Amino acid sequence: MSSSFGKNIKITVFGQSHSKGIGMTLEGIPAGKKLDMERLNAFMERRAPGRNAYSTPRKEVDKPDFLSGVVGDVTCGTPITAVIMNTNTRSQDYDILKDIPRPGHADYTGLIKYGEHRDYTGGGHFSGRLTAPLCIGGGIALQLLEEKGIRICSRIASIGDVKDEGDLTEYVLSNTIKEKDRTVYRNPAEERDFPTISEESGKRMQDLIAEAKSEGDSVGGIVECAVFGVPAGLGDPMFEGVENRIAQAVFGIPAVKGLEFGNGFGAAAVRGSVNNDAFRFDDGKVVTETNNCGGILGGISNGMPITFRVAFKPTPSIAKEQNSVNLKTMEATKLIVPGRHDPCIVPRAVPVVEAVAALAIYDILFD
Amino acid sequence: MSSSFGKNIKITVFGQSHSKGIGMTLEGIPAGKKLDMERLNAFMERRAPGRNAYSTPRKEVDKPDFLSGVVGDVTCGTPITAVIMNTNTRSQDYDILKDIPRPGHADYTGLIKYGEHRDYTGGGHFSGRLTAPLCIGGGIALQLLEEKGIRICSRIASIGDVKDEGDLTEYVLSNTIKEKDRTVYRNPAEERDFPTISEESGKRMQDLIAEAKSEGDSVGGIVECAVFGVPAGLGDPMFEGVENRIAQAVFGIPAVKGLEFGNGFGAAAVRGSVNNDAFRFDDGKVVTETNNCGGILGGISNGMPITFRVAFKPTPSIAKEQNSVNLKTMEATKLIVPGRHDPCIVPRAVPVVEAVAALAIYDILFD
Amino acid sequence: MSSSFGKNIKITVFGQSHSKGIGMTLEGIPAGKKLDMERLNAFMERRAPGRNAYSTPRKEVDKPDFLSGVVGDVTCGTPITAVIMNTNTRSQDYDILKDIPRPGHADYTGLIKYGEHRDYTGGGHFSGRLTAPLCIGGGIALQLLEEKGIRICSRIASIGDVKDEGDLTEYVLSNTIKEKDRTVYRNPAEERDFPTISEESGKRMQDLIAEAKSEGDSVGGIVECAVFGVPAGLGDPMFEGVENRIAQAVFGIPAVKGLEFGNGFGAAAVRGSVNNDAFRFDDGKVVTETNNCGGILGGISNGMPITFRVAFKPTPSIAKEQNSVNLKTMEATKLIVPGRHDPCIVPRAVPVVEAVAALAIYDILFD
Amino acid sequence: MSSSFGKNIKITVFGQSHSKGIGMTLEGIPAGKKLDMERLNAFMERRAPGRNAYSTPRKEVDKPDFLSGVVGDVTCGTPITAVIMNTNTRSQDYDILKDIPRPGHADYTGLIKYGEHRDYTGGGHFSGRLTAPLCIGGGIALQLLEEKGIRICSRIASIGDVKDEGDLTEYVLSNTIKEKDRTVYRNPAEERDFPTISEESGKRMQDLIAEAKSEGDSVGGIVECAVFGVPAGLGDPMFEGVENRIAQAVFGIPAVKGLEFGNGFGAAAVRGSVNNDAFRFDDGKVVTETNNCGGILGGISNGMPITFRVAFKPTPSIAKEQNSVNLKTMEATKLIVPGRHDPCIVPRAVPVVEAVAALAIYDILFD
Repeated sequence: MSSSFGKNIKITVFGQSHSKGIGMTLEGIPAGKKLDMERLNAFMERRAPGRNAYSTPRKEVDKPDFLSGVVGDVTCGTPITAVIMNTNTRSQDYDILKDIPRPGHADYTGLIKYGEHRDYTGGGHFSGRLTAPLCIGGGIALQLLEEKGIRICSRIASIGDVKDEGDLTEYVLSNTIKEKDRTVYRNPAEERDFPTISEESGKRMQDLIAEAKSEGDSVGGIVECAVFGVPAGLGDPMFEGVENRIAQAVFGIPAVKGLEFGNGFGAAAVRGSVNNDAFRFDDGKVVTETNNCGGILGGISNGMPITFRVAFKPTPSIAKEQNSVNLKTMEATKLIVPGRHDPCIVPRAVPVVEAVAALAIYDILFD
Repeated sequence: MSSSFGKNIKITVFGQSHSKGIGMTLEGIPAGKKLDMERLNAFMERRAPGRNAYSTPRKEVDKPDFLSGVVGDVTCGTPITAVIMNTNTRSQDYDILKDIPRPGHADYTGLIKYGEHRDYTGGGHFSGRLTAPLCIGGGIALQLLEEKGIRICSRIASIGDVKDEGDLTEYVLSNTIKEKDRTVYRNPAEERDFPTISEESGKRMQDLIAEAKSEGDSVGGIVECAVFGVPAGLGDPMFEGVENRIAQAVFGIPAVKGLEFGNGFGAAAVRGSVNNDAFRFDDGKVVTETNNCGGILGGISNGMPITFRVAFKPTPSIAKEQNSVNLKTMEATKLIVPGRHDPCIVPRAVPVVEAVAALAIYDILFD
Repeated sequence: MSSSFGKNIKITVFGQSHSKGIGMTLEGIPAGKKLDMERLNAFMERRAPGRNAYSTPRKEVDKPDFLSGVVGDVTCGTPITAVIMNTNTRSQDYDILKDIPRPGHADYTGLIKYGEHRDYTGGGHFSGRLTAPLCIGGGIALQLLEEKGIRICSRIASIGDVKDEGDLTEYVLSNTIKEKDRTVYRNPAEERDFPTISEESGKRMQDLIAEAKSEGDSVGGIVECAVFGVPAGLGDPMFEGVENRIAQAVFGIPAVKGLEFGNGFGAAAVRGSVNNDAFRFDDGKVVTETNNCGGILGGISNGMPITFRVAFKPTPSIAKEQNSVNLKTMEATKLIVPGRHDPCIVPRAVPVVEAVAALAIYDILFD
Repeated sequence: MSSSFGKNIKITVFGQSHSKGIGMTLEGIPAGKKLDMERLNAFMERRAPGRNAYSTPRKEVDKPDFLSGVVGDVTCGTPITAVIMNTNTRSQDYDILKDIPRPGHADYTGLIKYGEHRDYTGGGHFSGRLTAPLCIGGGIALQLLEEKGIRICSRIASIGDVKDEGDLTEYVLSNTIKEKDRTVYRNPAEERDFPTISEESGKRMQDLIAEAKSEGDSVGGIVECAVFGVPAGLGDPMFEGVENRIAQAVFGIPAVKGLEFGNGFGAAAVRGSVNNDAFRFDDGKVVTETNNCGGILGGISNGMPITFRVAFKPTPSIAKEQNSVNLKTMEATKLIVPGRHDPCIVPRAVPVVEAVAALAIYDILFD
């Protein structure tokens, strides 16, 4: 089913942008797991709108209400359902979009697929609002992964033509805290308001977003992730490899148009002698000297960090006038998209990428 | 299951590089479809080795033998199984690889996953040899798609740092033949020995491959696809969109490390006003002025060509000496990979990309 | 996933007997279907407790609250989620059951599977209470089937050793109303308070239930279904036949221990010449003279009514003293189950059987 | 997919009765399992035809040829494919059946589903011949279960109106051999030519089959199974319980029309105080005094033997004249089915029931 993901655990997302409620059901989580609800809410807060200049001023209270699957804060082994009731919606903003599809948005394809009865208000089921339930399930998966020493770290790699500096893996490893019986990886995206490694680059990205906004325009960007602590041997050859499953999850996020692992498209441009990751022993453990394969060989993890980059297109809903069509009158028309929209969804997308990656990795762990 | 793909139709691939046979089962194909076996063999021939200077000199007879699911050449509605018996194998080439994993290859991860009983000869189930059964199933899907006016066209977009010229969509459309009741799209990859648009670029790519080979090295590249004739409204939001399903299929091809749709990573670098595809009417039909979205909005096809690019890493098996480890003696070692290997798998990968794309698109048609 | 059913449409049931809420998500329903909410509530009412002498006096308000997937009462094509908040729970009744499992109930197996963190109150996720969400989804499926001329009719075939009289198929067909463009089948179970064909048999069954209740005991029974209007050619050979899929759904109802199609176990006792259903033409249409196969040959519908019978064990929660074990003290003990329980769940199970059958049949229609 | 079964392991069956070959692919089997091929062939032999008076005289050489997934006799972790080439077919026997469907057989529904291009020869994909590949996969699963101390025992419980005597569970337990570190359960069906407990009953059943045969008729029967050594806690509530999954598998066997667990339909006729299985301690282990639940409570195993009974209808292909229809001339006609057919398939079905039960149980073990 289209709104479900996972094979060993499964998340099912429901709701439309302006429906009575939105939420998710998460199946397959073992009993006896204590959820840190405060931390989950803090994670949800990272994708919440209205936090700063570059995000929409809507006020959404995204605190999940758990209907089932937990007793107190502890999982009981059966499906976990959490909902968020929708309150602050302004459907009238969308009246014009009933007949005039927004370029770059799913208005047109939703109409073709579902016909006149699709819920077009607020983007319906296609809305970025639906990433909130993804973050509930993903936030739970992140906690359960951490319990196993697995940590997903991320950053904004670029906004428009502004690139972050530094190497994510190196940065995280240099900030790692080795405790007696475990390694604590710190996620830079969690620790700073604007998730880049270079504060200076982050500043320039925010300026670019502000500039786009002032022009009634929007801008895209790239989110980079590295997953630490994944043991070697996870995933399968062919269609259920680590790459396939992360891919199926990541392309479930609205606005994602590209995905690469390790050296990715860069690998296509170089020689094998450059791209191959030589093996060596490190303290008796097999490691590779480089990580161009992104921690995955033949679909299976090799014990190195799993690294990938996700390309987000610019928010399609922009204030600038665009060419569109009126499907009622069947005439060409100009469109100025009404309503409140992020000039760049990339900052809010960072936890969403972590969320779906967590669901994919946690799912793979159960194979 | 890892070696299966599809929801409405399903391909299951079996075999190891040096097992008695390899093959595939294709379920869900309607009864009464006449298969053009000659054309299927011609398609298989496009991925066969030994065709020219840049591919391995192994002689494989890749003609599929159909055990079930057809009566004569016509499908009967039940599972189609076709096998290829393995004959020309030289397992002794792989003895050294039992203990010394090839950098960039799945030898190491296969060992971790399956243990000492994995079949490491010839790369086992991870071998590029397993793309032959993919081409049987995909070749059937291509024929059935064509019956519905859908055609997958492709080219090599780059090898190493050599890029092809021209725009694939424009090139195909300019070569289209409009017949009375249908449009015939011609696949450039099918019509030339080295599948580029610019013959000059193709020449330079072949030189680069020859150069890499002479150095005992290998080189990667990018395959580009465009799918013509797909109606609007196919695919679903979230996890079963057109992108997700093509992604799950494409990352099933060995050596793929990146995938982008439409403008892809390029979209991350530009403004919304540039990336959005404006709608207009063309002969009463809704089309877009550009196709930066690659024919997909909200996971659903919009009626424009579906376009995507696939990054292949360089063949990991190279003759150059590399650093590796001996897992028996637990010592660092040098490795020179024995055996016959393509210096660049990209040319042979072109039909494989078409094959898995055909399986994904045909699967989506049945939703 | 265990709490999900279906391949083309999918229901996911969530909730525990005493959790904050219970509910279901139904995926795959087409857009533009107007739901008759009044009729849905009337259907839900058929399984509601507290209707008469033989059911538990609990008051449950089982009116579903739709959070998503509908705009007004019309489906919009995306997942439909409906919830029922739990209000009238008496968890203290279950304190004794924390350590002493009820014979015949899932208390013991739930503990083994989920450990001390299972939700044992009210039977948790195993509770008959979870059949309410099944009836939401099934009730929707019943309406959509009816739109296609397919009707599921049912009756209680027996309670304990008291059997109903008459033949369900004959009874329904004799009460059929042929309208101009369609046939209206009337479901006897919908039209009478106690769903038997013979009122006299129904009276005797109710007496038996009352007798069991007065003895602090319970009693089982058999529900019979016949599905009218199913076209020939639905379902598949082997593992996704009509029987397999109804079976997977029906054994999802708590307390079901047996299932037979058509002549069922009776077929095992007779000759082929007796059991085979001879073909003949009826008004140019192929029909069979008998329907011992229950409308299914080779897993595929043959156009005759699909008939099956479902055996329910007696309610395991009885007031009579039973032998059990105390898992804390590890001593044998006597148990008198506290709380309010139906002496016979069969009457309330009739709409539940219809519900899951409707989900299975509707799912098969989309193949 | 219809011809596939399983979630953690998966069998895919391919072939038609008279296609070039039949076979199966089994995915998900761990690497390093040594298969006892001699024992597998002996198991296959139990379902082979031509062994005695009551089975068809066809000579089928059902020795599987393994194409992949094994190195020598040891599994390597990737899909196992085995084929049997069809040699001894007499398609001309089936010419008459092209237009005249056999009562009780899938000829008619196959035509409706697949149209004129279905493979009707020998029953095509519906043929009992396809149970041979099921026995390859099931035979492997039986060996792997045995390695874990789990044993499936069975017998013919009845043929027509002749019942076997004795209780299967008691019989097996009384013949159990307790070795130092394990319990060896002996399967009566494996140890005698005609698999009943009472030799006298078996003799009467064979007489009945011979009688039916002499009359050009056939007869049905019931197969009973008991699975020993299954630990408590396997399976899930609702739709993936032990019952649901065995049911989905068992109804995949041609001619099955009924299935009951434990007391089954008998439970519907008695009081709760009679049907409930009281708990007690046995040597510190929780057991039940009776096993009316068939080892399953709430879909989850309780550690007692899993017991079930499967009703087989009489072979539909009989020599006696029957009423049918000619679908070409659209006239009523008489039919005398040509060819060689078992007067009773129950004896040969016993290993098939064991096979699919083994696949289901082994699949559940991986949850």
